[in-house]
Amino acid sequence: MTGCPFCAAVDWGTSTFRLWIFDADGMVVAERRSADGLQSMGGREGFPGVLESHLAEVSAPDSLPVVICGMAGSRQGWVEARYIDTPAPLDRVIDSAVRVEGVARDVRILPGVAQRDPSHPDVIRGEETQLLGATVAGSRDGLFCMPGTHSKWVRLRAGTIEGFATFMTGELFSLLGRQSILAHAISDMAVNPTDSGFLAAVRAGMARPADIANRIFEIRPAQLLGFAPAGAGAARLSGALIGTELAGAKARFGTLASVDLIASGTLSMLYAQALEATGSAVHLIDADVAVRKGLFAAARRFWDQT
Amino acid sequence: MTGCPFCAAVDWGTSTFRLWIFDADGMVVAERRSADGLQSMGGREGFPGVLESHLAEVSAPDSLPVVICGMAGSRQGWVEARYIDTPAPLDRVIDSAVRVEGVARDVRILPGVAQRDPSHPDVIRGEETQLLGATVAGSRDGLFCMPGTHSKWVRLRAGTIEGFATFMTGELFSLLGRQSILAHAISDMAVNPTDSGFLAAVRAGMARPADIANRIFEIRPAQLLGFAPAGAGAARLSGALIGTELAGAKARFGTLASVDLIASGTLSMLYAQALEATGSAVHLIDADVAVRKGLFAAARRFWDQT
Repeated sequence: MTGCPFCAAVDWGTSTFRLWIFDADGMVVAERRSADGLQSMGGREGFPGVLESHLAEVSAPDSLPVVICGMAGSRQGWVEARYIDTPAPLDRVIDSAVRVEGVARDVRILPGVAQRDPSHPDVIRGEETQLLGATVAGSRDGLFCMPGTHSKWVRLRAGTIEGFATFMTGELFSLLGRQSILAHAISDMAVNPTDSGFLAAVRAGMARPADIANRIFEIRPAQLLGFAPAGAGAARLSGALIGTELAGAKARFGTLASVDLIASGTLSMLYAQALEATGSAVHLIDADVAVRKGLFAAARRFWDQT
Repeated sequence: MTGCPFCAAVDWGTSTFRLWIFDADGMVVAERRSADGLQSMGGREGFPGVLESHLAEVSAPDSLPVVICGMAGSRQGWVEARYIDTPAPLDRVIDSAVRVEGVARDVRILPGVAQRDPSHPDVIRGEETQLLGATVAGSRDGLFCMPGTHSKWVRLRAGTIEGFATFMTGELFSLLGRQSILAHAISDMAVNPTDSGFLAAVRAGMARPADIANRIFEIRPAQLLGFAPAGAGAARLSGALIGTELAGAKARFGTLASVDLIASGTLSMLYAQALEATGSAVHLIDADVAVRKGLFAAARRFWDQT
């Protein structure tokens, strides 16, 4: 049956739409990526049309079932798949999927996870599916770091999400680098993960998180007064923010001795370098692979009756 | 001679222009405020015209001398008044003023102060004049906090600026409150200094600066999950950022047991409440009064030959 479509799987986020067609062994037989995220959706009505048009492009059969994770399941999405609460067994994420009514196709949307703790209220949606994928074949214990616009740190024990924390690191980097006074000191937002200024800033950020709002400001006078080259701004800003995130994660989760890093691309290299430079043993898991494995694991539970 | 113009004094910043006419006793006999800051200047040519038009509005004599502080003395300003270096005696700020060439009137621009320390490069321009004013009649020792878009903390000993640090607190508050995901949780940027949520966030920010990027994110899920009222966002964000600034200032300057706070308006109340709530004894000095006194002290040294 290899090559024969078993299901479609979609990671439907705020800004992106990614679809894969899996065969019964979980191999990808077709793939689509587009900018049809929630931001570009006119309203609830648009969801079935966008999904069907992408399925048509890959000639998916009318009967092919679809599993979806991400913001499509939020209140602003297609159909709300309500948060399940911590402590949240990953298996319960699958069991709590919501079936979309009013469409001919079998479409199921996975829920996010809420931490209903007055001292640390927080939510994730999409990352639970990456965790599911990352742990399908391996450890279901550990501290997971999922960097991004809003970096997520998750403590998993025996396949259960015990607690998590979101850090606005990526959004701070973008806002500060493009729209603050620091924009005058940053000509290029690209950061080289092996840049010595990046790693020095990570170490300083982790060692002295309290003066973060001072140390990032210093990026500009450092150039004005001739202590730093003009091209060093982005690396110093990124390093300072990531280092402060690591200090915060350590304060929250006790130790970063061993970290499972679920990430892709440059971000995976930046965080891997930062974590290793500050003493963590890093186990890197590709984020794209993880979300596909997580979606396929859910699909198997829904539709594999063999 | 009371009421007879002795000099004009201008605080010429990035976004504002403020002018006062002093008599020989330092009393204000006329005043102008406008948005003619550097941002709205077309180029170097515009400076004499803007100054003369404001002087004409208050019927200042053609011979009246003018002292200026602030960004008009920066490289992007009218005439560069180069930074003097730390340790910087306040008297040297006056002695290092630059006289503007090519204008009939005697116009002098006060310099800023640079901290040429590779580990903490920083600059101030305008705050040195507030310090001058704050210490004309009083203590020339102490730790001074000057909150703003870029808050400045300055250690003064025997009338000499030993060192200082800039924190981007105000700019972070504005960027995060208006342009980040937190904007969805903040309907109104006004903060009440006696709001209990503000003070709780200050204390948490000071006690746990490392997880700042997590705690500000939590403002949004706190509302989504029903733990915080919709109107609480700005107070929590402001408190978290100011609390983290206080932690950074303490890490840098050793103790905040006694702080001279140079500020005006709501900001003076927010910082006074925050400092007192975290154990500092606060001496409040009005920032508008301080800059006027500083400019007048300089004018007296330039032109009072009695």
